Amino acid sequence: MTMKAVVFHGAFDVKVEDRPKPTIKDDTDALVKVELAGLCGSELHMFRGHQKTKTGHIMGHEFVGVVDSVGPKVTKYKPGDRVVSVFATVCQTCWFCQRGLGNRCANSLAFGTQQLDGGQAEYVRVPFAEGTLQHVPPNLDERLLVMMCDIFPTGYYGAMRAIEFIGKPLLPQAVQNGSGHEKRAATFEPQALKDTVFVVLGCGPVGICAVLTALSKGVGTVYVVDAVDERLAEAEAVGGKPLKLGRDDIQEIVMKATDGRGADAVVEVVGNKPALKSAIDLVRVCGIISSIGFHQSELPFTAFEAYQKNVTLNFGRAPISTLFPEALECLRENKEKVAAFISHEIPLAQAPHGYDIFEKYQARKVVFKV
Amino acid sequence: MTMKAVVFHGAFDVKVEDRPKPTIKDDTDALVKVELAGLCGSELHMFRGHQKTKTGHIMGHEFVGVVDSVGPKVTKYKPGDRVVSVFATVCQTCWFCQRGLGNRCANSLAFGTQQLDGGQAEYVRVPFAEGTLQHVPPNLDERLLVMMCDIFPTGYYGAMRAIEFIGKPLLPQAVQNGSGHEKRAATFEPQALKDTVFVVLGCGPVGICAVLTALSKGVGTVYVVDAVDERLAEAEAVGGKPLKLGRDDIQEIVMKATDGRGADAVVEVVGNKPALKSAIDLVRVCGIISSIGFHQSELPFTAFEAYQKNVTLNFGRAPISTLFPEALECLRENKEKVAAFISHEIPLAQAPHGYDIFEKYQARKVVFKV
Repeated sequence: MTMKAVVFHGAFDVKVEDRPKPTIKDDTDALVKVELAGLCGSELHMFRGHQKTKTGHIMGHEFVGVVDSVGPKVTKYKPGDRVVSVFATVCQTCWFCQRGLGNRCANSLAFGTQQLDGGQAEYVRVPFAEGTLQHVPPNLDERLLVMMCDIFPTGYYGAMRAIEFIGKPLLPQAVQNGSGHEKRAATFEPQALKDTVFVVLGCGPVGICAVLTALSKGVGTVYVVDAVDERLAEAEAVGGKPLKLGRDDIQEIVMKATDGRGADAVVEVVGNKPALKSAIDLVRVCGIISSIGFHQSELPFTAFEAYQKNVTLNFGRAPISTLFPEALECLRENKEKVAAFISHEIPLAQAPHGYDIFEKYQARKVVFKV
Repeated sequence: MTMKAVVFHGAFDVKVEDRPKPTIKDDTDALVKVELAGLCGSELHMFRGHQKTKTGHIMGHEFVGVVDSVGPKVTKYKPGDRVVSVFATVCQTCWFCQRGLGNRCANSLAFGTQQLDGGQAEYVRVPFAEGTLQHVPPNLDERLLVMMCDIFPTGYYGAMRAIEFIGKPLLPQAVQNGSGHEKRAATFEPQALKDTVFVVLGCGPVGICAVLTALSKGVGTVYVVDAVDERLAEAEAVGGKPLKLGRDDIQEIVMKATDGRGADAVVEVVGNKPALKSAIDLVRVCGIISSIGFHQSELPFTAFEAYQKNVTLNFGRAPISTLFPEALECLRENKEKVAAFISHEIPLAQAPHGYDIFEKYQARKVVFKV
């Protein structure tokens, strides 16, 4: 039996082809009949040829569909269940998965790579199905669920790491259980989120999701920094305060808004050196930099600067499956705003066109109907 | 009226001299009659001439004594109260102090510098007395309280930042209030401290205090890394597992003890580039580096490494006054072990000799009786 699938043939070259319908290989697999598949910005690294890879695999790491069949060890899902997938598999048994750190699952395979065919196809084999899939909640537009495979929880994580830190800038005991002869520590209250200033560096889809999360949770002021007018307009539409690179004196504006201290938190979503440099320049002493950008270069600040700033830094990617329930709740609260992201919904057969307009920034978010 | 004081005259040159007894200058001052004053490792930067400074000030930022007189705005302390001081003043009114971040008090002055005469003297003027002083608890050897001015709370902070993180590796909500349609997040438990492996890089006094804190709180295994045999022996005596630089294959030993993952937390107390490089090499994916060393150079790892490690980093110094009560409680639990630090208790008149033996590593901790 064959199926239609979007196959990678090299830079700027994807084709919709007939491929064998995948089958259950391992006891923990599920086979999913795809209904909607997203095209994600991170696929452009491969599509544009920047991320060198062999050809021949099926693209796509965002998909929503119906369980077709399951391996003998899958009991949580049964044929007919509607599901959404995480962008990479989550084995649930390794040391990291057992601690909720599925973002660094020791057995993880990313969909849409040489290691594992992706979801831009009629069917997709899902290894470690119980960890990798999530049940589709009722009463929620399926197109929105495509955002739950990667983008929304990633932005959510970036914002929430910072929000948590604002609530507990020192050590929780110091506030909650301060003991000893004076209990002085008990007299300090965490900074109220409404009085807190965030800067989100980069306002593509993940950045916007970070902005939505921050505002939903009550952060008082969220500045967004980008070089692209359209993105800044989108960020402003959801409540961010736009600052344009090359036009605005970002440092001065943020300092002025914080009595010269700097931002309480900087969420860095860009993944390059200038963004991290801005982050350290903009963050206040004893603040936090939550970096979810994928970095490939050096750190643009010294250990001396980090010491003097008394800064806390978090790097790396989100444990999507762990955060799925709470991120989904936040998505629900913002569903109209998130729905506005999805600019193009086109048939899978027209996938090459979808890649083309997405790559040329003529589409905000492309979803393929399968 | 004059008093005896240890005055800085330049590299390797301190003298005990007659100085005018200080007086209350500001409404928030207290004058303290010093009983015990510590000599701290960080004073060696100045004593050895590495930290360039003018001469003529009174040395010392660790002191315990009795309140002699107070300014009109000081109500918390009265003459006769026994007190211990934090190493730098804490104004209690600036934005940072109001949030418990006295480590970065906007009006802070460090004792024993050109800005503020120190406590190696018969009397010392203490600005912002209500924030800077702490009442001396009963039933505790005063010599131990000298450790509370700086060293013990700093080591405590280094260890506690990491311990807190182990208990909440993601976001507290994910564990405590996971909501949404699956509440999957509620199924994860934090790593038990008894199964946790820490590495403390540097085992001078602050490092030993970090080791004591970690073991007191239940961390299962604490490796300590240093180049000096005597220090490693001290660390071993309090329960650390010594690893000697240049002798042991530290990377291999830590990896072997953690099934190849790396240490859950690295507490870095050295403050140089090789130590931070070891920290990133030794920490596991999704682990934490708690750096309390005073760094003056670049960061010896890339943003790519930080991303791939999904690491959390904290830099900077401890908010001593905020943590004082809980750190003191931890000190009490370890009082015999901490008391063993204090190798020399000598009269203030012999201070130059104290500096001499301390600088030559012939003394572990020197306390001056005033």
